[in-house]
Amino acid sequence: MTDELRVAVLGVGKMGSFHVESLSRRTRGARVTVVSDFADEQAHRVGDPVGARVVADPAAAIAADDVDAVVLASPGAAHEAQVLACLEAGKPVLCEKPLTTEASTAAAVYRRETALGRRLVQVGFMRRFDHEYAALQRMIASGELGAPLMLHCTHRNPAVPDFFDSEFMIRDSVVHEADTARFLLGEEIAAVSVVKGRPTAEAPAGVSDPMLVLFEAESGALVTVEIFVRTGIAYEVRTEVVAERGSATIGLDQHLVTKRVSPDRGGVGTWGGTITPDFVARFGQAYDDQMQRWADAARRGIATGGDAVDGPGSWDGYAAAAVCEAGVAAVVKGERIETGMEVRA
Amino acid sequence: MTDELRVAVLGVGKMGSFHVESLSRRTRGARVTVVSDFADEQAHRVGDPVGARVVADPAAAIAADDVDAVVLASPGAAHEAQVLACLEAGKPVLCEKPLTTEASTAAAVYRRETALGRRLVQVGFMRRFDHEYAALQRMIASGELGAPLMLHCTHRNPAVPDFFDSEFMIRDSVVHEADTARFLLGEEIAAVSVVKGRPTAEAPAGVSDPMLVLFEAESGALVTVEIFVRTGIAYEVRTEVVAERGSATIGLDQHLVTKRVSPDRGGVGTWGGTITPDFVARFGQAYDDQMQRWADAARRGIATGGDAVDGPGSWDGYAAAAVCEAGVAAVVKGERIETGMEVRA
Amino acid sequence: MTDELRVAVLGVGKMGSFHVESLSRRTRGARVTVVSDFADEQAHRVGDPVGARVVADPAAAIAADDVDAVVLASPGAAHEAQVLACLEAGKPVLCEKPLTTEASTAAAVYRRETALGRRLVQVGFMRRFDHEYAALQRMIASGELGAPLMLHCTHRNPAVPDFFDSEFMIRDSVVHEADTARFLLGEEIAAVSVVKGRPTAEAPAGVSDPMLVLFEAESGALVTVEIFVRTGIAYEVRTEVVAERGSATIGLDQHLVTKRVSPDRGGVGTWGGTITPDFVARFGQAYDDQMQRWADAARRGIATGGDAVDGPGSWDGYAAAAVCEAGVAAVVKGERIETGMEVRA
Amino acid sequence: MTDELRVAVLGVGKMGSFHVESLSRRTRGARVTVVSDFADEQAHRVGDPVGARVVADPAAAIAADDVDAVVLASPGAAHEAQVLACLEAGKPVLCEKPLTTEASTAAAVYRRETALGRRLVQVGFMRRFDHEYAALQRMIASGELGAPLMLHCTHRNPAVPDFFDSEFMIRDSVVHEADTARFLLGEEIAAVSVVKGRPTAEAPAGVSDPMLVLFEAESGALVTVEIFVRTGIAYEVRTEVVAERGSATIGLDQHLVTKRVSPDRGGVGTWGGTITPDFVARFGQAYDDQMQRWADAARRGIATGGDAVDGPGSWDGYAAAAVCEAGVAAVVKGERIETGMEVRA
Repeated sequence: MTDELRVAVLGVGKMGSFHVESLSRRTRGARVTVVSDFADEQAHRVGDPVGARVVADPAAAIAADDVDAVVLASPGAAHEAQVLACLEAGKPVLCEKPLTTEASTAAAVYRRETALGRRLVQVGFMRRFDHEYAALQRMIASGELGAPLMLHCTHRNPAVPDFFDSEFMIRDSVVHEADTARFLLGEEIAAVSVVKGRPTAEAPAGVSDPMLVLFEAESGALVTVEIFVRTGIAYEVRTEVVAERGSATIGLDQHLVTKRVSPDRGGVGTWGGTITPDFVARFGQAYDDQMQRWADAARRGIATGGDAVDGPGSWDGYAAAAVCEAGVAAVVKGERIETGMEVRA
Repeated sequence: MTDELRVAVLGVGKMGSFHVESLSRRTRGARVTVVSDFADEQAHRVGDPVGARVVADPAAAIAADDVDAVVLASPGAAHEAQVLACLEAGKPVLCEKPLTTEASTAAAVYRRETALGRRLVQVGFMRRFDHEYAALQRMIASGELGAPLMLHCTHRNPAVPDFFDSEFMIRDSVVHEADTARFLLGEEIAAVSVVKGRPTAEAPAGVSDPMLVLFEAESGALVTVEIFVRTGIAYEVRTEVVAERGSATIGLDQHLVTKRVSPDRGGVGTWGGTITPDFVARFGQAYDDQMQRWADAARRGIATGGDAVDGPGSWDGYAAAAVCEAGVAAVVKGERIETGMEVRA
Repeated sequence: MTDELRVAVLGVGKMGSFHVESLSRRTRGARVTVVSDFADEQAHRVGDPVGARVVADPAAAIAADDVDAVVLASPGAAHEAQVLACLEAGKPVLCEKPLTTEASTAAAVYRRETALGRRLVQVGFMRRFDHEYAALQRMIASGELGAPLMLHCTHRNPAVPDFFDSEFMIRDSVVHEADTARFLLGEEIAAVSVVKGRPTAEAPAGVSDPMLVLFEAESGALVTVEIFVRTGIAYEVRTEVVAERGSATIGLDQHLVTKRVSPDRGGVGTWGGTITPDFVARFGQAYDDQMQRWADAARRGIATGGDAVDGPGSWDGYAAAAVCEAGVAAVVKGERIETGMEVRA
Repeated sequence: MTDELRVAVLGVGKMGSFHVESLSRRTRGARVTVVSDFADEQAHRVGDPVGARVVADPAAAIAADDVDAVVLASPGAAHEAQVLACLEAGKPVLCEKPLTTEASTAAAVYRRETALGRRLVQVGFMRRFDHEYAALQRMIASGELGAPLMLHCTHRNPAVPDFFDSEFMIRDSVVHEADTARFLLGEEIAAVSVVKGRPTAEAPAGVSDPMLVLFEAESGALVTVEIFVRTGIAYEVRTEVVAERGSATIGLDQHLVTKRVSPDRGGVGTWGGTITPDFVARFGQAYDDQMQRWADAARRGIATGGDAVDGPGSWDGYAAAAVCEAGVAAVVKGERIETGMEVRA
């Protein structure tokens, strides 16, 4: 390995090109040497300005000599093969969620990595790198609030494409709460239920938006998730933990607070601020911190032959997949589904 | 009737003596002429200072010549007979919740009043008189937020007596959310579920505290109620409506905000305020407004022979009873229970 | 005196008719028996509905047999003679600010009352009855924040008539901060300066709006007052005390908090609430509490022949007049003016 | 120049070693090749781990062949000579405030740079890189609030060394408000006054802490600065602009909000959060952004022979020096002092 970590980015759509920019402009000690995408033109559009080679075949990109580590932003269906290829090559990989599309294949990845005896797989649950989530996790873990009893999560998006149906909302959005609930509570999720209610008029026919998702943690702690992806307003992510000796909340909006007359509210004086418009505004720092810390860990792992992960690993990817699989079943069957998670090796 | 409304207060324990004080000190145009309580000594302790006669028999108190209207703060089990006696006497009655202890008897009261053709029964759901709930109700009813889809209610008490078991928490605490959900949404509750989770160490054995209660409104709108009555902290009542074109929250704490060093937090600088310690601090104004407006309506009703109610009536008392009865069944059976409410006459 | 306090209200313009309504509808144990106004028609419009006699001559109204106590909402220039008449008649008087229009005449009123040996004069500084100001005063007086060093006051009105020039802004608006600063700090104001800055385009020519007014308390504690009466927005009254061991703020706006899209802000998602539109919305409770407590104190004083005041008295009226007189001089001369207050008798 | 900007850091005490770390760990495209400090041991302690040479003589460090650009964190008295040396060498320099210790020498630096016809000097007013200040500046500049009339600045530190006397508080702390006021208002400061009040018991004899500093901008807009550096609590920096059509505030504390019982407040339930403990927690991001953007601009300037500045330049350094010089005179003489700023070349 040269002085800098040489990274291949597989899949350079919206998320992948964000990662290329983060690696090239905001991460010290790393650079993108290879990009790969099924759309050749897009691969060149993203790779050429940063001097990266375009390699059409993902397997070849992973195996390339000028690639020390891999970032996966390819479609979820491609993850299983690509992550396993990284494991075979002994190369650190930062894999966007989901780790794989089924709990069983995610478990297989976890077992393969465990057999290798070295942690190489990090899953892109970047909320763990957000200052607020990290502070809340520390506060819970410190025990100063006593045992956590309930966790109330709010997850709202202004708008999504029409293919976001009820199942996709679980797999793509609630997956973040699956991981943050595990991260904050420090335990696994035992069962999932979904309560459908009155859908917004903005929802396509047959899509339950918003939904209420309930996680039951092993300790009995309850997690409520309001998932609502067509609010028309902004990106709102809020979490309140209710514990035996206190409660705590993150995700409040308070930045630039203005007082003035609002013409659209009948000319009355109003106070307030704007809500974070998208995930970059809310979690951009967390994405960059994740990338910087992963690049550092990858370099350290390559240099020492040891673990190459500074964040959620393949077990966390498996656990989220198991929760979401149960969640999707809960949506379809309309009943409480146990996650039936395997015992951790 | 004389110039002032002459009121009998039945039951002068904690709540009844609060009402005697409100009528005597803070309500114009009303005075307490009769108090009645099964504990004679307590009746004198409360009634003597305001010049009220003590009448041991509730029926005699209701029928007394110097009684124009009645306030019921007697035990719930006594309400049915006493409210019916008020209806027979044609006297306005402000009945503390619950209207009666079963949905069926509450429905009977509603039918009896409907047969009389004159509204005489008001139920003590005083949150409707709170400025914040009233403002939220107006905002929803105005349609500016679009259709309400979810209602998130938080109801926390610092401490309660040991007899507050899971069922009592539904009947005595969640009953407020049963009414405010109906008030805010403007529709009936069709079904109730209860999700028990990890109880606080402060809860007696077998008591599920906190619980998550779910109401399904007729429109499909979902209501989540976190009921937690042993937080050890303060009285917190908060409500957020999530609607198609926006959301709104009441019950935030912001009054006297202080910045200083907190010795118990390791000497770090902290900012914040105190949380409302009890229901009087939070809803005292609502209780007084309720009483004043009820007294005015009662005088008007007596003078005109018409309705004598300015607030929730016996139908609202029945609806809350039906919801709580379903809620208690949901606690006991661990399943979703439909309220099966009668069609309104 | 009969059972109820019989009150004459002198001056029934905007403020006086508000007081008539408060006495008639929201104050127990008091009723308006006489109203007096130089505009006869207005006197009847306000007095007739509550059954009050109209008496054209203020002196006759004060002296009337069916008048136990007096509320003065007449023009400030009439106060001196009317308050002195109340003192001669031994009748409690609640006098709207200012007590009199000059510090010297206010001092004379104070000396006259002191000579009588009985407190009969209460000045209408109703902010002292506001829950937030009262809580802040208690916190400062408790010593838990240490010695107060600075007090930052914000006083903003949406709009005022054109006759509100720089001097009138001191006499009519800053007079409230003159009293609250004294109330909160528990000491007198020694000197006043005024710093004029850039006027808003809404201000008439020659009027300094906004202004920065500085009070120096006897202890050296500084008070800054931003007075801005043509903001076009809402009624904002906010106070922050900065003390040796902490700071505290009142007057934050947090009631019904909404999240939604604001069309006038380019369709971005916004959060916030509305600002109190006027003084009734902000201080209505304080006005009513003031009236109720004054009526109670007046009845008690009449019954016992003792003091008849439950709030700021004539010394407080004098002190505010002295501060405002210095403030007006500071506006005119552009320099720091000592209040030169007389030693309290 | 090689691919990376090779930087000499002069002065590696608290601030300088912070800059070395920022350049070495968090800034892409830059590395520290030379460090210089009058304390040789400290220079090695900071320079050795990042592979930088230690050069004792500042002039030699500036002139060194392996130095493309210079960061000055040396004592203020050394700045004039060092900045001029950078100008002679044509090397970009990021100079910690103050640019120089007197307004006259700062003006000389500005004139020298202007004569060169190329901007090489950036002054370390890093608040301009803070997201909140930048957002507030954009909002004011957009004109949507109308003309700014007043700016209220709060600047509080928990504790400072004893040598922080009244003059030092102006030069070292208020200097930030001198620059941010100019940045936010977009105009120069014409005059400065200082109002001393009651000092905290924590202040050494003769030190006025807190003080109220008043800036008068050219437009007449007033700036109030509460400077209080011994609060014992935390680092609080807050700014409110009051404009013709609205007001806006930054620096509110709202991050992790907790509700619980506070033993030191008598066991009452409290809500709130912690206040930023120090400048790194509040402005660390701004320091890093400043460094990254300066390094980029320096590389660009070196490559093109043009300007090498992306932020406040020597004129801004001069203006702040002129304001602080007037501020110190205002402290000493107790009167309003005009800044008498030179006309910009």
